[in-house]
Amino acid sequence: MELSRLSFNQITANDWSVREAAMGCVQAGIPYISLWRDKVETTGLAESARIVRDCGLRVSSLCRGGMFPAASALERAARVDDNRRAIDEAAELGAEVLVLVCGAAPDKDLDAARKTVESGIAQIIPYAVEANIKLGIEPLHPVFAGDRSVIVTLAQANDMVQRLTSPQVGVVVDVYHVWWDPALYAEIERAQGHIVGFHVNDWLVPVGIPLTSRGMMGDGVIEIKRMRKAVEAAGYKGPIEVEIMNQEIWNRPYDELLEEIKTRFIQHV
Amino acid sequence: MELSRLSFNQITANDWSVREAAMGCVQAGIPYISLWRDKVETTGLAESARIVRDCGLRVSSLCRGGMFPAASALERAARVDDNRRAIDEAAELGAEVLVLVCGAAPDKDLDAARKTVESGIAQIIPYAVEANIKLGIEPLHPVFAGDRSVIVTLAQANDMVQRLTSPQVGVVVDVYHVWWDPALYAEIERAQGHIVGFHVNDWLVPVGIPLTSRGMMGDGVIEIKRMRKAVEAAGYKGPIEVEIMNQEIWNRPYDELLEEIKTRFIQHV
Repeated sequence: MELSRLSFNQITANDWSVREAAMGCVQAGIPYISLWRDKVETTGLAESARIVRDCGLRVSSLCRGGMFPAASALERAARVDDNRRAIDEAAELGAEVLVLVCGAAPDKDLDAARKTVESGIAQIIPYAVEANIKLGIEPLHPVFAGDRSVIVTLAQANDMVQRLTSPQVGVVVDVYHVWWDPALYAEIERAQGHIVGFHVNDWLVPVGIPLTSRGMMGDGVIEIKRMRKAVEAAGYKGPIEVEIMNQEIWNRPYDELLEEIKTRFIQHV
Repeated sequence: MELSRLSFNQITANDWSVREAAMGCVQAGIPYISLWRDKVETTGLAESARIVRDCGLRVSSLCRGGMFPAASALERAARVDDNRRAIDEAAELGAEVLVLVCGAAPDKDLDAARKTVESGIAQIIPYAVEANIKLGIEPLHPVFAGDRSVIVTLAQANDMVQRLTSPQVGVVVDVYHVWWDPALYAEIERAQGHIVGFHVNDWLVPVGIPLTSRGMMGDGVIEIKRMRKAVEAAGYKGPIEVEIMNQEIWNRPYDELLEEIKTRFIQHV
């Protein structure tokens, strides 16, 4: 894939600040960046916005909103408020999309947690419309069903988009999270017109600690090009984020890492 | 759940031989055992069969056949042959079911591997009919899609059973592998009449190395009782296997472990 669509998700260089990541992108000629809220908070929101604007970078997304389920009504309301703040931050950063990692059940009740997620998203839609921020529901791999997201398939995310009936809500397709799904290509097709993000990395074998064992594109077993073409056929022509959470990669020199990402992006995406 | 349905899957006490596992079950008053082929091979097939018969144990299943996909036609044929041998072994051990862990793709082509799995099972059905061994397709958690099984949902397994149209083929439901699935209860209902095994353990949070981090029933987030009731409502009244692959559990004294399993089985299954 041509580099004009490459977005660097800053968690791939986890030890870099917003400024370092932005400068890294400029030096590597990468046009888009995706930012994380905790790192933006460390640098300061206004300062982060200034940095990326001054660097001439476009912000493909802000990671992340979501995490709607909680044990008490008070805490659930606080989570919705936090999502409104995330929308404000995304707007100030000039991000196009707020990625939603929807959250896990506070107990064993997946059904209830799934309802809470949908109701939480419904509550923030008007705010997102006002701010002109797309909400991207990202189904996570089922390995994260217990601690990060009760939304684990593209089918679920598509169903939710369909029920919420707002053009403000779409889905984010991350190859790591959905590659195993027998319904994948049918669901990508069904996501026609409401895909708001596409993330690439790879699935390594054998499997390590899932949270920090994503692979570099080309090092694993995912048919990345096939998925990229399917996502394009479903109407998504936007930035493609490289998002790799991997302890070994975090230990590497990041400038060299960015060069490798570019090579792999051209070859394997 | 009452102990009369408890089956001890011997991998839960990974360092025990067939004889040790069988004696452990007798001493603990556990009526069923599930055996693994590698351990049976170490002890010897005839000797293993004699041990469990002499102990008065019933063998709920033999683990495992499957692993159909391979890079060459020659190797795929060898895998089918190996499954015939597994059926012979199951018959000699008096096992009711051969559990099928279907195998991963030798390349990135999941679709092709899924076809190979189905064709492999189709090829061994006549042999299984002859030997009176049920073939239990066990969908594995999608975290194993890259290295163990391209069959990752109960929907896929049910679809295959439906297409294969043989009463010899059914599905094995393991709570660890399917608990996250939004379609779970609908698919358990659809498995009505062809569930041939039910395995219990738990999903621990946070997630460690998936292969060796299963939990003891009650220590994790799975609604085990709800699933057990659903499986019963779909007609399965057979043995319930406790199958826990966990390095910490493997390090414990096994006699004490068996007592805990009984307590947890009564309380949480």
